[in-house]
Amino acid sequence: MKALWFNGKRLELREIKPPVPRKGEALVRVMFAGVCNTDLEIIKGYMKFTGVPGHEFVGIVEQGPDNWIGETVTGEINLSCGKCPYCRTGLANHCPNRTVLGIQGKNGAFAEFITLPLKNIHRVPANVFDLDAVFVEPLAAALRILDQVQIEKGDKVFVLGDGKLGQLIARVVALKTNNLLLIGRHPEKLKLAARLGIKTALISRIREVRPEHKPKIVIEATGNPKGFEQALKLCRPGGILVLKSTFRELPRVNLSRIVVDEITVVGSRCGDFSKAISLLKDRGINLEGLISGIYPLDEFHAAVQKSASRNSLKVVIKCLQ
Amino acid sequence: MKALWFNGKRLELREIKPPVPRKGEALVRVMFAGVCNTDLEIIKGYMKFTGVPGHEFVGIVEQGPDNWIGETVTGEINLSCGKCPYCRTGLANHCPNRTVLGIQGKNGAFAEFITLPLKNIHRVPANVFDLDAVFVEPLAAALRILDQVQIEKGDKVFVLGDGKLGQLIARVVALKTNNLLLIGRHPEKLKLAARLGIKTALISRIREVRPEHKPKIVIEATGNPKGFEQALKLCRPGGILVLKSTFRELPRVNLSRIVVDEITVVGSRCGDFSKAISLLKDRGINLEGLISGIYPLDEFHAAVQKSASRNSLKVVIKCLQ
Repeated sequence: MKALWFNGKRLELREIKPPVPRKGEALVRVMFAGVCNTDLEIIKGYMKFTGVPGHEFVGIVEQGPDNWIGETVTGEINLSCGKCPYCRTGLANHCPNRTVLGIQGKNGAFAEFITLPLKNIHRVPANVFDLDAVFVEPLAAALRILDQVQIEKGDKVFVLGDGKLGQLIARVVALKTNNLLLIGRHPEKLKLAARLGIKTALISRIREVRPEHKPKIVIEATGNPKGFEQALKLCRPGGILVLKSTFRELPRVNLSRIVVDEITVVGSRCGDFSKAISLLKDRGINLEGLISGIYPLDEFHAAVQKSASRNSLKVVIKCLQ
Repeated sequence: MKALWFNGKRLELREIKPPVPRKGEALVRVMFAGVCNTDLEIIKGYMKFTGVPGHEFVGIVEQGPDNWIGETVTGEINLSCGKCPYCRTGLANHCPNRTVLGIQGKNGAFAEFITLPLKNIHRVPANVFDLDAVFVEPLAAALRILDQVQIEKGDKVFVLGDGKLGQLIARVVALKTNNLLLIGRHPEKLKLAARLGIKTALISRIREVRPEHKPKIVIEATGNPKGFEQALKLCRPGGILVLKSTFRELPRVNLSRIVVDEITVVGSRCGDFSKAISLLKDRGINLEGLISGIYPLDEFHAAVQKSASRNSLKVVIKCLQ
């Protein structure tokens, strides 16, 4: 099969053997795979991953139990062992023996086929478009914030970062509070959210926020090592800073400010696919305008370039030939 | 009066005018003042403070309302405005208009006299020794952790740092759980805690903790910019990392690990003096062996040197001539 392979230095199109599903696994023919900021970091060396990246996908079950064959599905990315203390206490996403689709020890979705355990696979309801289902993984990650931090109606929240993930987070937070500000660097991207009634601001306009106007919650989704410091400056003393970005760099951080201002920093990663799928099924979230381009597998160079470009949001790779 | 003055470059003994109490303030004759790690950072340039450092003290009210004169007191270090939204919503310690005794815009306790608002002052009960009362401020800071993080009986907690503050934190956490490990670099200091029945370990022995043995809560009190990374490596995914240390440096931090492991980092600063005083009054905590030296004001060079030395715990400056 065709797959995009990262050899530790560069991404290339390769012909490789399709994966063979083990017991309890399905073989999925990938239709579309989304490019995430983590993928862009991975091909810069983050996680020291080699193999096929890609962890946001929608596909069709090709091999597996009869009742799964032909189903349109997406899938959770953490392959946990199911036996360790983490798995037994509801922390399976943190299983120390896990592999992670396209991120850690497991070939991912920038390929014609992937395998996944059946327990990881979720049916995509008939009324959800394939291209919307590509957003299930990042939407679940956005919804994860609501599991971790209670956001009440009227709570003041700043979302920092108007990119792919920041856009989803803003839409999700808007379900809880209308006292929300999406802050970014790209007028065009901010406009997309503004069209949905979300208040937006350019970061250049609000570097200094008076203490009484600082928000209780800041959600950092810039994808940028400098985002944390910006978020820390915006966050109210005694407030909560949700951290979403992952990258290769180890930025310098004003840890003393976390102490002096008694900030709570909440690391936030993967979320519940069922909730994300329900939200799409119920038309609870508007994804209009979030796809910036769709490229076939063999135009991956253009896809990566587009994804990394300033004005791009979600880039999708069409894996189905 | 005699005072230790930090001019931005070095600490020196100066003769300065004693402060004059304003309305609602008391003049306190300082008996003893403790040297904190923050003081050592301040004289390296932290907070860009100039003036008299020192914020842990016990003294006697010399001027003020009749019912206060002659009382042995200690005092809270944050001088808040009382009017801003922070002050009005229970966040007075984070008042943006505040000064902080010996740390920010307000001369501190390494002097014969200080002034403080009466609302900041707490009586020291008759059965509490003056030298124990010097610990009220750092003990309140240790107790602050219990306001922020729920520690249940049996919860596994690592306290990282066997210094002045780590010792107090370990004693406070031991009131809540016996599944506690104090980790440090100084066998002599660890022995002090071990004598009270607290389990201890040298950091060199436990750099690798297997995932199933990682604690739910790690409290970082090393006073060292490298402490955070150590704490992060020890903390269980999904766990809580309480951060206590403040310093001048901006260390490099593996922020992605906070995200991937979904760690909650809780910045923790000042605490409730009443609780600390009650604990001392009720003999709820054992401070034996925590004072490493007592120096008169004019031997401050030796006091600072001692305080910064490897085997030192709390150094006290005797301000009363």
